Amino acid sequence: MIMSISRRTFLKSSGAVPGLLSRGPAARRESSGSGVTRLLARFVVASKWSDIPEAARKEAARSIVNWVGCALGGARHQTVECALSALSELSGPRAATVLGRKERLDILHASLLNGISSHVLDFDDTHLETIIHPAGPVMPVLLALAERQTMSGADFLHAFILGVEAECRIGMAVYPWHYDRGYHITGSAGVFGAAAAAGKILGLDEAQMTWALGIAATQSAGLREMFGTMCKAFHPGRAAQNGLTAALLAAKNFTSSEESLEAPRGFAHVLSEKHDFSKLTQGLGETFQVTRNTYKPFPCGIVIHPTIDACIQLRNEHSPRASDIARVELRVHPLVLELTGKKTPMTGLEGKFSVYHSAAVALLRGVVGQREYSDDVVRDPEVVALRDRVTAVADPGVREEEVYARVVLASGRALEKHVEHVVGSLANPLSNADLDTKFRGQAEGILSEREVRELLSLCWSVASLPNAAAIATASVPA
Amino acid sequence: MIMSISRRTFLKSSGAVPGLLSRGPAARRESSGSGVTRLLARFVVASKWSDIPEAARKEAARSIVNWVGCALGGARHQTVECALSALSELSGPRAATVLGRKERLDILHASLLNGISSHVLDFDDTHLETIIHPAGPVMPVLLALAERQTMSGADFLHAFILGVEAECRIGMAVYPWHYDRGYHITGSAGVFGAAAAAGKILGLDEAQMTWALGIAATQSAGLREMFGTMCKAFHPGRAAQNGLTAALLAAKNFTSSEESLEAPRGFAHVLSEKHDFSKLTQGLGETFQVTRNTYKPFPCGIVIHPTIDACIQLRNEHSPRASDIARVELRVHPLVLELTGKKTPMTGLEGKFSVYHSAAVALLRGVVGQREYSDDVVRDPEVVALRDRVTAVADPGVREEEVYARVVLASGRALEKHVEHVVGSLANPLSNADLDTKFRGQAEGILSEREVRELLSLCWSVASLPNAAAIATASVPA
Repeated sequence: MIMSISRRTFLKSSGAVPGLLSRGPAARRESSGSGVTRLLARFVVASKWSDIPEAARKEAARSIVNWVGCALGGARHQTVECALSALSELSGPRAATVLGRKERLDILHASLLNGISSHVLDFDDTHLETIIHPAGPVMPVLLALAERQTMSGADFLHAFILGVEAECRIGMAVYPWHYDRGYHITGSAGVFGAAAAAGKILGLDEAQMTWALGIAATQSAGLREMFGTMCKAFHPGRAAQNGLTAALLAAKNFTSSEESLEAPRGFAHVLSEKHDFSKLTQGLGETFQVTRNTYKPFPCGIVIHPTIDACIQLRNEHSPRASDIARVELRVHPLVLELTGKKTPMTGLEGKFSVYHSAAVALLRGVVGQREYSDDVVRDPEVVALRDRVTAVADPGVREEEVYARVVLASGRALEKHVEHVVGSLANPLSNADLDTKFRGQAEGILSEREVRELLSLCWSVASLPNAAAIATASVPA
Repeated sequence: MIMSISRRTFLKSSGAVPGLLSRGPAARRESSGSGVTRLLARFVVASKWSDIPEAARKEAARSIVNWVGCALGGARHQTVECALSALSELSGPRAATVLGRKERLDILHASLLNGISSHVLDFDDTHLETIIHPAGPVMPVLLALAERQTMSGADFLHAFILGVEAECRIGMAVYPWHYDRGYHITGSAGVFGAAAAAGKILGLDEAQMTWALGIAATQSAGLREMFGTMCKAFHPGRAAQNGLTAALLAAKNFTSSEESLEAPRGFAHVLSEKHDFSKLTQGLGETFQVTRNTYKPFPCGIVIHPTIDACIQLRNEHSPRASDIARVELRVHPLVLELTGKKTPMTGLEGKFSVYHSAAVALLRGVVGQREYSDDVVRDPEVVALRDRVTAVADPGVREEEVYARVVLASGRALEKHVEHVVGSLANPLSNADLDTKFRGQAEGILSEREVRELLSLCWSVASLPNAAAIATASVPA
């Protein structure tokens, strides 16, 4: 919950996502929503690979690199172990890989498990305008289908881009009202992305794609109340599995409403207080939402990211010794203290909600990954000692993607850093090299160095792979 | 949609379901909902077979007879064929029967398919206070588990009663607001019934049962917009499958919120405009909702039932020849014409929305089953000729479970019938013999006479069966 609130507020205050195109009379007509489900279905069915701009292809590959890393990072999480132990015995033909593991499952269960593992560390991607984590519900379905039938990397990437487009566009039409009502939008909108992507690969015609969206709509679910429990990661997994089911059923002409998004008792009215379908239709086919995807550099609440960014930069520029640091002074957006003001975290998880711990490890280690939020590191006396010298002041004049950090040395000298646009924001995105580093950190302990190199190379070159299934199979440790 | 609206209005006007016990201060405290998820979990976990009153056991057996018949009746429906052709190849270990068919599926997919077939003809049971069809999401799960592990008939019946209690009590807490918002409550509340019943059989402890309800809550879905499409029957099936999944996960300590019903972002707040948790708690363990279950005598919208009832009685009492009938005059509740006023139906399905066709076939044939709503019968010249002599007048003074029917013969003589409480209402329930007749009608063409006798006998004697799985296996045609 905390991270999602912060992401949203971050978006609103950052100004990083400009409004969509101005609305003419046509758009106003469209915003009533009449025919919008079929319009979206038609768009997905008709889309050709050659219609996809290079920028969208590039960002989609980056999204895939980021997502595969996240799935590896979560592959051994207790949530994944739990789900596997409950469901593995019920698996059908074991055609699909559980990423980062030796187990295989049928395509539906593999979709569930890979959706869970990719989200369980809250380290995946974010479409800031809707706070949807776009790859989570879509990638598992495509990887599973790629292992069932031959699928070129271009087809894979194309379907991925369309799945992301469907879920984000539908999310945009109901955001923020749908999220405010209490839905975990990555699950409740994600199911449409999974259905659209799977439907594209299965070659659904327009009527079938319309039904697939409808079967997705009638499974749309996921409560924000579940944040902090295993069910949070269950949401993108179940969205993937349910969206794939929707497409498989629609392919056999299983019917649904053909106005599932816009009808008076359809998705937008029932699961949201308000909606604006012009957000779905405007620029559809011109602006691709995948180009607005972002990637978290650090596995913690996004409000702490500017602080971590500043502290890592200070360390890189000045290499202060911990023993020389008299105090660390932070001037932060007020939400930082509200959401992550924990002074004395006792566990790794609590560390994620402590701006003090986060600043200290960033200064001490220069990297902040999953390891820096382990119980051991949070209790490390050297970390605790520095943490206790960190103070933070809330300042409403500081934007959420901004921080003023000041390290005062024992000598009295002050090192200062003003981060204006935090790394990972749209204005300051992670570089490809940053994504490589993030990937390597997550794959550590799961894959060997050689395996990591091979898998990374496959992900970056997805558009030219003869068989996209290679990404799934290369994720399995020897 | 039509049938559900009519059922609800029927309930409201019938006065057949009296209010629950009067509310004292304790109930008012409880209605805030604090701890209600855990309270319900504790109730289900702690319940003993000896706690269940004889009336509940008896009505539960009647519910089971009715439900198994419905599942047979729908077993060859196109909706079932579609779903099977899409999903059968993905089945895991084929431990469970698809009722009335030779196919077997894993317990999750069998739950889906049996939930679909039992609801696809809109002929199943109704808990009038919530218009939930209670057996649909619960029975498939219990039959599947019975085939996986040995389960006595008493354990089966006990879990069934508790599952029905959970879904109906939760439904009561959010009805009518949840339904009015647009949810198909049999799916959205049914998932809790499936989880509770499965959890009881799996021996979940209180914490696990609380999680099972939470995992159910976060999957709660199903739009009324889907009425009239294959997705309507998909809802109870998916509720069964999702509730079973919830219980299987919880058994492995997959966690969820422990306040999934009552929390500010929980089920009741997010999926309903209002709620009243005193409806869930008051009399829990004393009054069992299964005793309020009802069974449709005719496979069409419930608003037409009084007319059919009257016409069958007139035929039985006077045996008028069709050629002697000058005209048929009906005085009906206004909703009858609003919902089923189709003068010239062309298909079997349209016949279900024609009070004129329904009156005509009832007078001509004396029974109204699925056959009377086939395309052939709807287009039969003899039926059409009589149908065209039926007139109906809306009268706000006529209650929904009431009708005044008048058959005027060529001789000028008038035969009259006033039905005050339609057959199938709580005040005039179907007899066990009626349920037998209904069952036989649905099993026709699926099972042989001998097979029907055997299966019926197993259903009636469910409480004393050494192994409840016999019901599933006996449903398979030789």
